[in-house]
Amino acid sequence: MNRCVVLLSGGIDSATTLATAHKEGFELYALTIDYRQRHRLEIECAKAIAQKYAVKKHLILSVDMRGIGGSALTSTDIDVPKDTIPIPLGAPHPIPVTYVPARNTIFLSLALSWAEALEADTIFMGANVVDYSGYPDCRPEFIHAFEDMANLATKVSVEGRLRFKIRTPLIFMTKVDIIRKGLSLGLDYSMTWSCYDPTPEGKPCLRCDSCAIREKGLKEASGLGL
Amino acid sequence: MNRCVVLLSGGIDSATTLATAHKEGFELYALTIDYRQRHRLEIECAKAIAQKYAVKKHLILSVDMRGIGGSALTSTDIDVPKDTIPIPLGAPHPIPVTYVPARNTIFLSLALSWAEALEADTIFMGANVVDYSGYPDCRPEFIHAFEDMANLATKVSVEGRLRFKIRTPLIFMTKVDIIRKGLSLGLDYSMTWSCYDPTPEGKPCLRCDSCAIREKGLKEASGLGL
Repeated sequence: MNRCVVLLSGGIDSATTLATAHKEGFELYALTIDYRQRHRLEIECAKAIAQKYAVKKHLILSVDMRGIGGSALTSTDIDVPKDTIPIPLGAPHPIPVTYVPARNTIFLSLALSWAEALEADTIFMGANVVDYSGYPDCRPEFIHAFEDMANLATKVSVEGRLRFKIRTPLIFMTKVDIIRKGLSLGLDYSMTWSCYDPTPEGKPCLRCDSCAIREKGLKEASGLGL
Repeated sequence: MNRCVVLLSGGIDSATTLATAHKEGFELYALTIDYRQRHRLEIECAKAIAQKYAVKKHLILSVDMRGIGGSALTSTDIDVPKDTIPIPLGAPHPIPVTYVPARNTIFLSLALSWAEALEADTIFMGANVVDYSGYPDCRPEFIHAFEDMANLATKVSVEGRLRFKIRTPLIFMTKVDIIRKGLSLGLDYSMTWSCYDPTPEGKPCLRCDSCAIREKGLKEASGLGL
């Protein structure tokens, strides 16, 4: 049975990615990063999802990115934007302040380290370029460059024992198609978390971009449209 | 004044790299990673060295790599080799068990994140391929691949505001030449730490590879040879 490491945040995309890897028959190792994000509630969702898919191991790694800052998600000095006007697909798309500097590079590096220790040749990540983001570290050219680098960085690749593959099965999908795919795999999206800026009571704010995209996707997938 | 992030472990190579960046007139941001290494004593040395060079900020970031394992430096199940016979330069060199899976990829990723938040375009690292290692993530081809990836991964590079450079000024130097360079820059190597496996009393073991290479380098640099 092939082993893989799946980056699991607890959101829609990573949960769907885990369900995809499960469907393909991989032995699953789920990796969740506690980077002191505002929305650490997602980690509880990641735990429940990992349990549902009977992962072989769920590793929660702490990296205190508040010391680095530079993002609304890790710094209390920068507010999470609310009620933003959606930018049409294809239009110029400034990178939002919710971008966390080099976050996916860090996450993939940690996944690579664990994959090497486990001798797992595949890393799954729910990166997506279509509905949302503009995040540079979700683009296929970044993923390819990371994969090339990974195969020069590691003992097992240099010794010729493994060649790492970074798989992003959702990268070109719209949010509604991601949700439809997950539903077809039996995923229960009420187990996932999306909000970037939960209320003090631990509820979704329903006004950040991530909430807006979630709601739109779930409505469209259920046939309700907007 | 140009800003840079310097990865500072507290060992000979990273201290010399910091001294080099200081000599070049950079505004210095030192980054030390507490990855639960056996030799966390090096962090105390890093603090003293950072203070000596009056760095603008010294950030110590925790990443618990014991959860990942796969190395003698992060797992108590794997012993640090002692009294190994040195392999001549150019001879086949198996990668030692002190290799930590993807460690330098993780360290550079964290440095990249901080560099982006600081808008610092240069990252210094004391990677070296000559005296020792065989570590895949110290080789120039890895460093180049990381640099290419970094410039696809980040907001500031995609927006064209910065192009990141990963500088490894010691990469082709022997340990004795590194030490001579540091001495010429006024570095006091008694402030540095090398041992991978300190005694319970906090002294160097004097038997691991890192101790052996340190002693050989310091003796040669002082004209005592071996």
